[in-house]
Amino acid sequence: MTTEDNAVFRHSIDIQLRFNDVDTYGHVNNNAYFAYFDLGKEAYLREVLCADFQSRRVVPVIASIRADFLAPVFYGDRIAVETRIARLGTKSFTLCQRAVSRDTGQVKCAGECVMVCFDLRESRSVELPDDYRRKIAAFENLSE
Amino acid sequence: MTTEDNAVFRHSIDIQLRFNDVDTYGHVNNNAYFAYFDLGKEAYLREVLCADFQSRRVVPVIASIRADFLAPVFYGDRIAVETRIARLGTKSFTLCQRAVSRDTGQVKCAGECVMVCFDLRESRSVELPDDYRRKIAAFENLSE
Amino acid sequence: MTTEDNAVFRHSIDIQLRFNDVDTYGHVNNNAYFAYFDLGKEAYLREVLCADFQSRRVVPVIASIRADFLAPVFYGDRIAVETRIARLGTKSFTLCQRAVSRDTGQVKCAGECVMVCFDLRESRSVELPDDYRRKIAAFENLSE
Amino acid sequence: MTTEDNAVFRHSIDIQLRFNDVDTYGHVNNNAYFAYFDLGKEAYLREVLCADFQSRRVVPVIASIRADFLAPVFYGDRIAVETRIARLGTKSFTLCQRAVSRDTGQVKCAGECVMVCFDLRESRSVELPDDYRRKIAAFENLSE
Repeated sequence: MTTEDNAVFRHSIDIQLRFNDVDTYGHVNNNAYFAYFDLGKEAYLREVLCADFQSRRVVPVIASIRADFLAPVFYGDRIAVETRIARLGTKSFTLCQRAVSRDTGQVKCAGECVMVCFDLRESRSVELPDDYRRKIAAFENLSE
Repeated sequence: MTTEDNAVFRHSIDIQLRFNDVDTYGHVNNNAYFAYFDLGKEAYLREVLCADFQSRRVVPVIASIRADFLAPVFYGDRIAVETRIARLGTKSFTLCQRAVSRDTGQVKCAGECVMVCFDLRESRSVELPDDYRRKIAAFENLSE
Repeated sequence: MTTEDNAVFRHSIDIQLRFNDVDTYGHVNNNAYFAYFDLGKEAYLREVLCADFQSRRVVPVIASIRADFLAPVFYGDRIAVETRIARLGTKSFTLCQRAVSRDTGQVKCAGECVMVCFDLRESRSVELPDDYRRKIAAFENLSE
Repeated sequence: MTTEDNAVFRHSIDIQLRFNDVDTYGHVNNNAYFAYFDLGKEAYLREVLCADFQSRRVVPVIASIRADFLAPVFYGDRIAVETRIARLGTKSFTLCQRAVSRDTGQVKCAGECVMVCFDLRESRSVELPDDYRRKIAAFENLSE
């Protein structure tokens, strides 16, 4: 996994766990992490891109997801999701995310997600808008 | 609750339980029943009204919900949701629903739900369309 | 509904909405409110009762739920859940809850929930423990 | 992705979609696929291993997940999840899964999941029990 341990995550959001995130073993269910990662993605894209996707025609959609479940989370644990964009392609970009304990810093789950820019009206993938590219590159200190 | 035990439920749908419906006590979480009842509602309205709500401007929306949790459901239990419409008003109607064991017939949860006809374009409640009223009355043997 | 508008809610918790709380109409799905109310319940009981239910044998379980959906919530709305206990019975108590806009104070959804004290080992309802009763009465200014 | 198109999937299960699987774009939310895949996994393991995990001490837990989202699913689409085990390791195995249209056969989402055998009492990974290994190898026509 390309989520190297020494990568810098400049974006973090605290997660409010819900009782029904927890399964019959008393662990947070694997699927709940994807909802946590969505909260991180959404906050990152809203804050870094300053974009309101409700009113835009071109939105990033998820093309693929990977996640490694490294340690269990229990109800009552305090969790944050850290997000960074590690790669900027022509039509797509790669987000790295991890769920970490806010108390110990332990990484509970590390994931990667490829998002593709999608034109909702034409139902096809399109190039990453220039303003998105510039803002992400500036925030992450990446070359455009 | 007006869900009398001797009421006739003419509509039933089998439910596919999901692993994350179950909470840390090993019981199906209370909230999951509302998803089961939605499956019952949706199948009832689609089959009895022969309506495709995706393309309609007037759709029934939920105004209020009541539910009594009578007995726990465990993962692996086989559950059906029974639905009937017990009352037809001018702009609203009342659905009675229950989640029952397909093996023992035991009622696990009994609920009631008031739905109001809502015009999505004008964002206001409107009268129940005549074709809805006729079809429901015929199916339930109610007076219009 | 007994959730009178002038009732005093001494407990409030901010809710973190999730993208998949929103349905195809762009509204927060009815079922998501029950997850919000659970967050309110759980925080209330943990803070007022100072109880760790994971390690207790007698836990409050939900016997019935009512909810009136008064106004839609949209993604991006800032929502709080307010909770109070309006009635203390022998084995049960009644929680009133509402989801309110943190920006306008508008009540989006008002609900009531009867919880029954349940002995997990003996699988039966039991009397409300004295320490729970005292703490709730003190917090809510109710007579025990 | 190692889910080659010509691989033989001997296990399939029909999925009951839920209204709140659908997001604000009218598509089935990415996260819902993981619940569908769980239904496939659970049915596969129950049927092929003839195992009741509720009463076993060694259970398979998810170590990592990959999924490629290939085509959108809409509410009302009829979806099946196909599952096969492609690799048997010492302590782990790899499940390949795909969500396919029951009408057109189109693959909507293809995923892979590594599961590790976990001893719940000792909280550590352990070797795959021999009876699991034999039953999987026989079902999939794999060498043990």
